[in-house]
Amino acid sequence: MNSFQFHNPTRIVFGEGAADRIGELTSSFGKKVLLVYGGGSIKKTGLYDRAVKQLNDAGITFYELPGIEPNPRLSTVNKGIGICRDNGVEFILAIGGGSVIDASKAIAAGVLYEGDVWDFFTDKAVIQQAMPIGTVLTLAATGSEMNGSTVISNWEEKLKRGAGSPHLFPRFSILDPTLTYSVPRNQTVYGSIDIMSHVFEQYFSLTENTPLQERFCESILQTVIENIEPALANPNDAAARANLMWCGTMALNGGQISLGMVNDWASHGIEHEISAIYDIPHGAGLAVVFPNWMRYVYKQRPGRFAQYATRVWGIDPAGKSEDELALAGIQATRDFYTRIGAEARLADFGIGDDQLDRMAEEAVRYGPIGNFKRLEKDDVREILRMCL
Amino acid sequence: MNSFQFHNPTRIVFGEGAADRIGELTSSFGKKVLLVYGGGSIKKTGLYDRAVKQLNDAGITFYELPGIEPNPRLSTVNKGIGICRDNGVEFILAIGGGSVIDASKAIAAGVLYEGDVWDFFTDKAVIQQAMPIGTVLTLAATGSEMNGSTVISNWEEKLKRGAGSPHLFPRFSILDPTLTYSVPRNQTVYGSIDIMSHVFEQYFSLTENTPLQERFCESILQTVIENIEPALANPNDAAARANLMWCGTMALNGGQISLGMVNDWASHGIEHEISAIYDIPHGAGLAVVFPNWMRYVYKQRPGRFAQYATRVWGIDPAGKSEDELALAGIQATRDFYTRIGAEARLADFGIGDDQLDRMAEEAVRYGPIGNFKRLEKDDVREILRMCL
Repeated sequence: MNSFQFHNPTRIVFGEGAADRIGELTSSFGKKVLLVYGGGSIKKTGLYDRAVKQLNDAGITFYELPGIEPNPRLSTVNKGIGICRDNGVEFILAIGGGSVIDASKAIAAGVLYEGDVWDFFTDKAVIQQAMPIGTVLTLAATGSEMNGSTVISNWEEKLKRGAGSPHLFPRFSILDPTLTYSVPRNQTVYGSIDIMSHVFEQYFSLTENTPLQERFCESILQTVIENIEPALANPNDAAARANLMWCGTMALNGGQISLGMVNDWASHGIEHEISAIYDIPHGAGLAVVFPNWMRYVYKQRPGRFAQYATRVWGIDPAGKSEDELALAGIQATRDFYTRIGAEARLADFGIGDDQLDRMAEEAVRYGPIGNFKRLEKDDVREILRMCL
Repeated sequence: MNSFQFHNPTRIVFGEGAADRIGELTSSFGKKVLLVYGGGSIKKTGLYDRAVKQLNDAGITFYELPGIEPNPRLSTVNKGIGICRDNGVEFILAIGGGSVIDASKAIAAGVLYEGDVWDFFTDKAVIQQAMPIGTVLTLAATGSEMNGSTVISNWEEKLKRGAGSPHLFPRFSILDPTLTYSVPRNQTVYGSIDIMSHVFEQYFSLTENTPLQERFCESILQTVIENIEPALANPNDAAARANLMWCGTMALNGGQISLGMVNDWASHGIEHEISAIYDIPHGAGLAVVFPNWMRYVYKQRPGRFAQYATRVWGIDPAGKSEDELALAGIQATRDFYTRIGAEARLADFGIGDDQLDRMAEEAVRYGPIGNFKRLEKDDVREILRMCL
């Protein structure tokens, strides 16, 4: 276990009916608010009207930034920064999933920065301050509701990049599992795979002596695996939706489950290059990339993959070599993803091999990626080729 | 899973050498500090000199409250309140284990309260504010370093009571596992049992649908069980000491592992009555009480105890009824405690049956205790009798 620091100031308000506290919690931070949301599903479900009523009742003046894209775009972030500056906005309220929250964080950092907000995503500048934000989560997936990270796509340059800062932790996050009852089947699948992928990035680590952290990771993986199919079979399954939502938050809340471990994040880097060009859902890309990344890297520490196979998937180790066990666990992952309806290949999205070189090049733009195995351009291209 | 709120603002600084940051972290909160510590072990180990040098180097004026008792006393807390008031102290630095931290929290709340600080422990008043405190942990056990709870003994009235408030979360806690290398064998045992007991209070719950929370609990229990004996065999085992320390913090950091679960806390209530009269170590009392509490209550939900037996102790369920499995898990707990050197009976401390009635009476002074099974006076007396 390595040394670490941990501080997570986000206040979580979890449970059925938590969304009735939007007005109360928001009003303690400001009376001029930017309301950020996505493609309109919150209007269909009635959540928009519910939030607007609470904001009005609390005497809050609010401006709106609708239409956040599934891979939120820099141009939209800049639009939000403009609205905040023009109107003296004091607080940003994000209602949606990871894209909406990430866009809101970027806006929060950009408003108080004189330069181009994209500087934060290209390591040209460090976030020194940010406006306060709060979130109302509508999709179990991101973890962004309880961490200081954001990922934004620069569509003009076909780049998707992350930034992070302690200033970006939401002041509060409302986690009301009933808001996820209306999440469509494919988004439930992709969101759950996103959660599992966040755990994988932490769990497959070369750091020694992290037994508690490993078990926390396995706990989330097992719980997600148990709850996806009940949620798919009955979208209003209160227990399954609550479990998936809490797993999503715990999977990526400032790295708490893996403190003192070196994380990997190569697969996210590779997926970002795919969705930066092809705009496929993040979780869908991860479902394709991760099993192939696993096959490519497992020999770095086959014991961790063997442990994963036995503890998470319950695979009997009897008569199997460590490598066989490791590969069985990887195959179990792929089989499960296929069973719940996630695509296995880039070809399923009509993606061919014509951009492989460019994606590999971009992935290592700032140097090799990943820590479990450091991946050079050729490694990334090979993993992408395996994904075809 | 029930609805919940969660907010834990404590900053954790974990790792070898973290204790070199005492001066830096303290000085960001004030220049007049009360230094609280225990019986002098920090002088023997050199930690006192190390802290004093850092405080001096940081230009901090500090006052001292040494001699905090293993069960910290109200009289000592009042002494600390007096020192703070007389000298305009701005920040309290607790260097020690749970007793020192708990005393510091009580002082922090008492300084800013006009009435008797004991009011907070008898539900006569609610903590509305507190001075900021920071901690340097020297014993893996309490969890107090990352939560808002404190337990104090009123020696005159032979009462031991708890209080809690969001205002009592330490602003920072330094967790340097090397500081625990010098912890004696028996305190390592009792501290580890304290950690396990904190988990038991959360894990044995009647709340439905908490699979992630249960696994988090089991993760800590398994990790503590794995690491106690290595730490006893080699007190300088860096890995074991680090794991025990992190388990202790995660076991009781504002209830994070069991959010949405109803907790029990009857065994702690019973143990408090024992140590309020006999002043035995908290962990030693819990080692006696918990297995007996388990036997007394397991029929409320034998399935949870059966799960405990299989998942935590690896007991093969084949051919066993649920009750048999539950009892095997309880016996495994007792056997393990005995193997690591914890006393099994109150008689081992020279405690007889003469105060049973008084302890039972006091335990239910404010009504029945516990939630897994509500315990009336007769139940408590019976559990105490089983402990004799």
